[in-house]
Amino acid sequence: MTRPVITAFDWVPDFAQGQVRDLRVRWILEEAGRPYDVHYLSQGAQKRSDHRARQPFGQVPTYQDGDLTLFESGAIVLHLAERHGVLLPTDPAGKARATEWLFAALNTVEPPIMDHAVATLFERDEPWSKPRLPAIDARIAERFGEVAARLGDREWYDGAFSIGDLMMVAVLRIMEGSEQLAAHPTLVTYVERGTARPAFHRALAAQLAGFTGKPPAGYAEWVAKGDCA
Amino acid sequence: MTRPVITAFDWVPDFAQGQVRDLRVRWILEEAGRPYDVHYLSQGAQKRSDHRARQPFGQVPTYQDGDLTLFESGAIVLHLAERHGVLLPTDPAGKARATEWLFAALNTVEPPIMDHAVATLFERDEPWSKPRLPAIDARIAERFGEVAARLGDREWYDGAFSIGDLMMVAVLRIMEGSEQLAAHPTLVTYVERGTARPAFHRALAAQLAGFTGKPPAGYAEWVAKGDCA
Ligand SMILES: N[C@@H](CCC(=O)N[C@@H](CS)C(=O)NCC(=O)O)C(=O)O
Ligand SMILES: N[C@@H](CCC(=O)N[C@@H](CS)C(=O)NCC(=O)O)C(=O)O
Repeated sequence: MTRPVITAFDWVPDFAQGQVRDLRVRWILEEAGRPYDVHYLSQGAQKRSDHRARQPFGQVPTYQDGDLTLFESGAIVLHLAERHGVLLPTDPAGKARATEWLFAALNTVEPPIMDHAVATLFERDEPWSKPRLPAIDARIAERFGEVAARLGDREWYDGAFSIGDLMMVAVLRIMEGSEQLAAHPTLVTYVERGTARPAFHRALAAQLAGFTGKPPAGYAEWVAKGDCA
Repeated sequence: MTRPVITAFDWVPDFAQGQVRDLRVRWILEEAGRPYDVHYLSQGAQKRSDHRARQPFGQVPTYQDGDLTLFESGAIVLHLAERHGVLLPTDPAGKARATEWLFAALNTVEPPIMDHAVATLFERDEPWSKPRLPAIDARIAERFGEVAARLGDREWYDGAFSIGDLMMVAVLRIMEGSEQLAAHPTLVTYVERGTARPAFHRALAAQLAGFTGKPPAGYAEWVAKGDCA
């Protein structure tokens, strides 16, 4: 078997280190015990046509295995779970329930968190960002209250740790250390449980070890347009 | 076989009629030729504990079939595609490629479109909304350019019409009639091809026929907090 190849950045600003979306792909590959290679992109290279052929939005991560090239961290994680028989029940009902948390993380919980990142990082100097923050914070507080209420005192959302938990932990930890997450101790310990997994440790260490590159020339401009937090 | 039951609203404001997320579930059920029942909620009822037991975020749609209750339109559409063997290739690579467009629609294309809806509808009277619109519009224009570039002159994203196309059409048509979509004639015809499908027509007609209820008492307040466009 040849090794699959993922794409990742050779440099991102400090605030994004440990948060770049290839972490999710590294994490499930580690959970599955599958070695992989990494094709590193310098900042800016993600918008070149050779990378857009892999990823139409000019982003990371991508996953390539022989003839198959995939983008979208959610799709890659789901594909790898099915392919390697990890973190996903095999009965249709259990599988669907794990998958619903994958979508909840990506389509319901992540958007307000990304709004927060845009307002506090990429567009922090725009006049509209600060006045808008209370509305964003209220939305995040609402979502955190809802995910905490459903989690209750359970360890994971639906029985064993699944790709739904992997993605929910990956999304919630964007807000690690925030007052909003701290307001829900059960979510804090949920994130701690997820990130205590040895596979997560290896994935995070591998992402951090990959930042051997340099900021691009037009760094200030790039950070204003960036899209990762 | 008992009929599955979905949840939908008995009333939404005009701008949301035809856009409520249960449309996606109705659409794939129609594509699969599966009859279903609808449990209608009046506005406000989605936040009551009996509905939150089905949908932790107090939203529609949900899907219930015997013991299995699911939320998240993306998860429901994927489950139904697998269960009924429709709109999804059965080989793992083809399946993963259809699924990546499902995630692209929900995690990459829909968020800026929802930002636009929030700024022009739910938070339109907030002082920050108008100044922020050009930045939102620029993000949407970038995404539309990217999805148009990848579509090229293809009919669908990856061979036959799939759940990836179903979701991308459902997301893009939120901006139907906008200048931004009109800037990409191939996207306009892509949406037209998708919405010309008889299953889409039946799904839309069924959603519209379900609006037999009345606006809630605190309508002005509700619209400001709403979450559908
Ligand atoms: N929906 C995509 C999002 C990917 C994404 O946001 N990638 C960021 C890094 S975390 C990126 O490549 N940003 C660089 C850019 O947009 O130029 C996924 O989940 O794969
Ligand atoms: N990510 C969810 C979003 C569902 C959603 O946005 N539902 C809206 C209607 S389109 C809703 O129920 N809004 C009412 C509310 O939030 O109170 C999905 O795709 O199922």
